[in-house]
Amino acid sequence: MTLKVGVVGATGLVGIEILKLMPQFLRKSEFTPVGFASRVRPGENILELASSWDELRRCDYVLSGATSEVALMLREHMRPNQFLIDNSSAFRMDPSVPLVVPEVNGDLLKARPPLVANPNCTAILLCVALAAFRKVGLNRVNVATYQAASGAGIKGLEELDRQHAALAKGEHVPKPEVFPFQLAGNVLSHNSSIRSGTSVGAGYNEEEWKVIEETRKILDVRHLPISATCIRVPVRRAHTEAVSVDLGEDLSLEAARELLRAAPGVKMVDDWESNHFPMPIESQDQDLVFVGRVRKDPSLAKTLHFMLSGDQLRKGAASNALQIMKALVDG
Amino acid sequence: MTLKVGVVGATGLVGIEILKLMPQFLRKSEFTPVGFASRVRPGENILELASSWDELRRCDYVLSGATSEVALMLREHMRPNQFLIDNSSAFRMDPSVPLVVPEVNGDLLKARPPLVANPNCTAILLCVALAAFRKVGLNRVNVATYQAASGAGIKGLEELDRQHAALAKGEHVPKPEVFPFQLAGNVLSHNSSIRSGTSVGAGYNEEEWKVIEETRKILDVRHLPISATCIRVPVRRAHTEAVSVDLGEDLSLEAARELLRAAPGVKMVDDWESNHFPMPIESQDQDLVFVGRVRKDPSLAKTLHFMLSGDQLRKGAASNALQIMKALVDG
Repeated sequence: MTLKVGVVGATGLVGIEILKLMPQFLRKSEFTPVGFASRVRPGENILELASSWDELRRCDYVLSGATSEVALMLREHMRPNQFLIDNSSAFRMDPSVPLVVPEVNGDLLKARPPLVANPNCTAILLCVALAAFRKVGLNRVNVATYQAASGAGIKGLEELDRQHAALAKGEHVPKPEVFPFQLAGNVLSHNSSIRSGTSVGAGYNEEEWKVIEETRKILDVRHLPISATCIRVPVRRAHTEAVSVDLGEDLSLEAARELLRAAPGVKMVDDWESNHFPMPIESQDQDLVFVGRVRKDPSLAKTLHFMLSGDQLRKGAASNALQIMKALVDG
Repeated sequence: MTLKVGVVGATGLVGIEILKLMPQFLRKSEFTPVGFASRVRPGENILELASSWDELRRCDYVLSGATSEVALMLREHMRPNQFLIDNSSAFRMDPSVPLVVPEVNGDLLKARPPLVANPNCTAILLCVALAAFRKVGLNRVNVATYQAASGAGIKGLEELDRQHAALAKGEHVPKPEVFPFQLAGNVLSHNSSIRSGTSVGAGYNEEEWKVIEETRKILDVRHLPISATCIRVPVRRAHTEAVSVDLGEDLSLEAARELLRAAPGVKMVDDWESNHFPMPIESQDQDLVFVGRVRKDPSLAKTLHFMLSGDQLRKGAASNALQIMKALVDG
């Protein structure tokens, strides 16, 4: 018997990746994929699917790469024996829903939860690397990101491409619609809204806040002091992060590298002689998190710095969701 | 009587900016500019100038935008009444040479030193912003950079332009010569060499080490715990930095902003509603350091985060050198 796997948001960048990569995670004979394009009728609380609702109800697993609005409606329609793995932020911080990066907290899947949240892409990549130091103790984390245009979906990617094409022809760059300002040849604070007011978290954008809260939940360090500065760069695909971490112990550089090398999901790219370090043109289109530039702080014995790069549409979204499904299937 | 001002390295990006901007710092009637293209004869310790050495010896001020090798030879040829303002790293960490950002430690110019070092571009921009918090106390600094291709000179800029042109035409990107890997559509660890070995500073690249050492010297906080991650992004001009700073006191967000707003050389660009923050396409071609995204750490009361952007060829090089000259002229 083959599993019916429904992919909601099948025409979006994440949905496309899920459908493309599914055969890498399950054998062809094990599943039948069904793509569902989704749309919420404006002003109404009705989810429309390009295929039929009956079809969705017959799926064993539903993987959603659609919006939070769609995800909330999907949950209401799920049957008891179905599993929903959702890539939106709708359920991530719900205490009853596991937020899973299989290499880090995959043990949560043993309970076979019917709803699993797939974390924010930047948080997934960060947690894969930080998990290397869990036994040593994580006392403080700081991250600055170099995020790709495709993190904003197909429209973000197309906008960057159009801007590059215009600049190359010496033409005027068309007015940006996805990003608030021109991204080509520029660097932009992440285009999510800023948390207003004056209480904790004021001034952070929503992307940064997801990284902060989700990293704490995934690593299960509830009060971890962590901050993030999320910035878009004119890169098509794959996110890069500059990470600083205060550990519980004074590790030697070699010991730190050894922990990273042994961490599941990490590939070390740290060649001092040829200046070869993690970069998006190499980390894209594969599933490992590239880590390098590992070094000890010049003044603080327990502080390490490194950079990482990974494909935010694969390990940061589609592949992580498929890993979750695979773990549930293998039970 | 007009001042004769010699500009060595006059055909380089910094030299061109110095010659272009000089009239903004001194009245036309006050000076006569003389450009000198410089070249060190390969394998020999001889500095060749496109104009005559006699001409250089008649200059009251010599501003060099050339290499450290040229700078070391220039110093040997300087007459007692000449001033040398050098943009290379040859003299920056020499304890007998002041390293000056006029807004920060311009008082060092009152002694009329014959040789003044112009700091590293990334360090200048950082110090202009950090100086706002000197009275509060700086306990720890961490910076991740988004540096422009023109920081690697004309050849770096042209290489990025060629890569963008090839990509827009769907052609193969020519083999990089200035940067170790393709910069267009990518993010690269800074292309300076990595400090080897296992002692303090191992694994840092030379750019990062300059930021660390020079920031300590400019701010006169000798043992300041500071780290930097220097990264190139596909931007033509102006550097951006994500900065985290641990202060001596718990400042309110408003108090922190007030200090930054009052800091000489800083322009606040911090509009939460429209996501308008410092970015290179706006900070280029002017002399202020744009600062924004100011926010308090969610966990650490004395920690602030912000980002900044500034033109590394102007405030990060040419304009800073001209400010130094202007201060010496005004005496």
